[in-house]
Amino acid sequence: MPLTVFFAAGPNLWPEYEGPLPAALAKAGIAARIVTEAPADPASVDYIVFAPTGIISDFTPYTRAKAVLNLWAGVERIVGNATLTQPLCRMVDPGLTEGMVEYVTGHVLRHHLGMDTHIHGQDGVWRNDTIPPLARERRVTILGLGELGAAAAQALVALNFPVTGWSRTARDVPGVRCLSGAEGLAQALRGAQIVVTLLPNTPATQNVLNGDTLALLAPGAFVINPGRGALIDDQALIAALDSGQIAHATLDVFRTEPLPADHPFWAHPKVTVTPHIAADTRPETAAHVIAENIRRGEAGEPFLHLVDRTAGY
Amino acid sequence: MPLTVFFAAGPNLWPEYEGPLPAALAKAGIAARIVTEAPADPASVDYIVFAPTGIISDFTPYTRAKAVLNLWAGVERIVGNATLTQPLCRMVDPGLTEGMVEYVTGHVLRHHLGMDTHIHGQDGVWRNDTIPPLARERRVTILGLGELGAAAAQALVALNFPVTGWSRTARDVPGVRCLSGAEGLAQALRGAQIVVTLLPNTPATQNVLNGDTLALLAPGAFVINPGRGALIDDQALIAALDSGQIAHATLDVFRTEPLPADHPFWAHPKVTVTPHIAADTRPETAAHVIAENIRRGEAGEPFLHLVDRTAGY
Repeated sequence: MPLTVFFAAGPNLWPEYEGPLPAALAKAGIAARIVTEAPADPASVDYIVFAPTGIISDFTPYTRAKAVLNLWAGVERIVGNATLTQPLCRMVDPGLTEGMVEYVTGHVLRHHLGMDTHIHGQDGVWRNDTIPPLARERRVTILGLGELGAAAAQALVALNFPVTGWSRTARDVPGVRCLSGAEGLAQALRGAQIVVTLLPNTPATQNVLNGDTLALLAPGAFVINPGRGALIDDQALIAALDSGQIAHATLDVFRTEPLPADHPFWAHPKVTVTPHIAADTRPETAAHVIAENIRRGEAGEPFLHLVDRTAGY
Repeated sequence: MPLTVFFAAGPNLWPEYEGPLPAALAKAGIAARIVTEAPADPASVDYIVFAPTGIISDFTPYTRAKAVLNLWAGVERIVGNATLTQPLCRMVDPGLTEGMVEYVTGHVLRHHLGMDTHIHGQDGVWRNDTIPPLARERRVTILGLGELGAAAAQALVALNFPVTGWSRTARDVPGVRCLSGAEGLAQALRGAQIVVTLLPNTPATQNVLNGDTLALLAPGAFVINPGRGALIDDQALIAALDSGQIAHATLDVFRTEPLPADHPFWAHPKVTVTPHIAADTRPETAAHVIAENIRRGEAGEPFLHLVDRTAGY
């Protein structure tokens, strides 16, 4: 009898998955019926594919569901849902990781090379009197050494940047100076010239970049946030930009998205806003992760990317 | 008796080498006297350190000089000097290579990610409806697979770009689709979405990007030239930018430098001018290359980076 997979991620996403998901399930050898609306009998559902923009918020009736498979890497909008008793899996999509590595590497190099001057400044004056430092002289710190942070850190190491990584619990990433815990945080930030925030959004990580921690960075440092908007205290960042402590911030995520048109980030000359494009789940690759987790569930193997509800990610 | 090393690269460069060059010679175990002005007895000179901005143009009197050691990678302004009969070595400086790899990788990612829109466009409108392709879907072609081209190609391969490389004579660079010769050139350019020019300036490479070859690229391709100004037919490039065949050109080198203030590249909205900063010789690392070549000369070993006068590089 085929499994019932409830695609509850919503009608906006279904057109993107309509092709890849059945194909990935077939390739994994899984006989499944995919439904895109809440079925009359919720207890018939074996797996729920979900996104925070999805069409259900009460998981109670899905008594037989063996897992909720999130299409997003971030789970902060679902992890606190008290009705969710089923195992919850995050999406760790190789396409998403690749996109994130490209965004981080690109914007780190942009700030490292001082590109904006040339992109903005076509005034006919030839200024070649300052040789920029080499990457090996530019200290980069990455907050967060999960799948995305670790991959970005290694791409930067390959380009010779001395990279420090910080995570809540100790990690080991080859070539990266890895620090953890509260004391490690100050050490990781002190003197950093470029900081990239790739932490999950949890009560413990909110405002990790605030007035106190921004003051630890090297004067004129750059901030790149492709992680979560809540990681940064917006007002403290604006104050640090205005004082010159931070030279520029490139922000992809915000507390409110879309970023409201009257938010000061839009008009600030030292802020680059990108509209949550650093890393998108790619249906072609994500569908295979979903299928693999369903295969594991049926085979009694541990799920990939299972969320620890206590830690919040 | 100590060797006589004539630093003929000119008084502008001497302050940068005054510290590193004696230190590198000492470290290589070479007893040498460095002179910075043409000596009364030119036949006393053992080695000439040179740059095209230097203080001699007639090498005839330097009858004992065992080599002319150029501080620049490009030798087009010296290779045709009929008075130069001594062996001529190019500079291949690890610092210069690193800087070039950073410039190329940074600007390839900039165009790949479409950064300029966000760097320029803070208009308060959230546009996140287009997911950019991944690097693995973006075809990059590098013209020139020498030290710099090969290093840049490998950095791009590490970021998943499918890279095609072209060189006059056949080369083999791991992970890179390597082509050579006249037919290989058309094949390398056809359908490329980003082209990076890192060829030496020789009669055979001048105007390698012209109206015909630019037409082979994918519509809306990007051109990045950190190599030599003469590699591109300026008028053909402007025509291709105006027609939309080329979306943007980022140029670091020009036929006349400094680029004249009235040159159309400065004002063109689809051209980014950088003032020959892609890769600078770094005295700290270059001094060791000079010292190593002097050591080799004294030991009767072959020089590093010896120029082939026939090929012109």
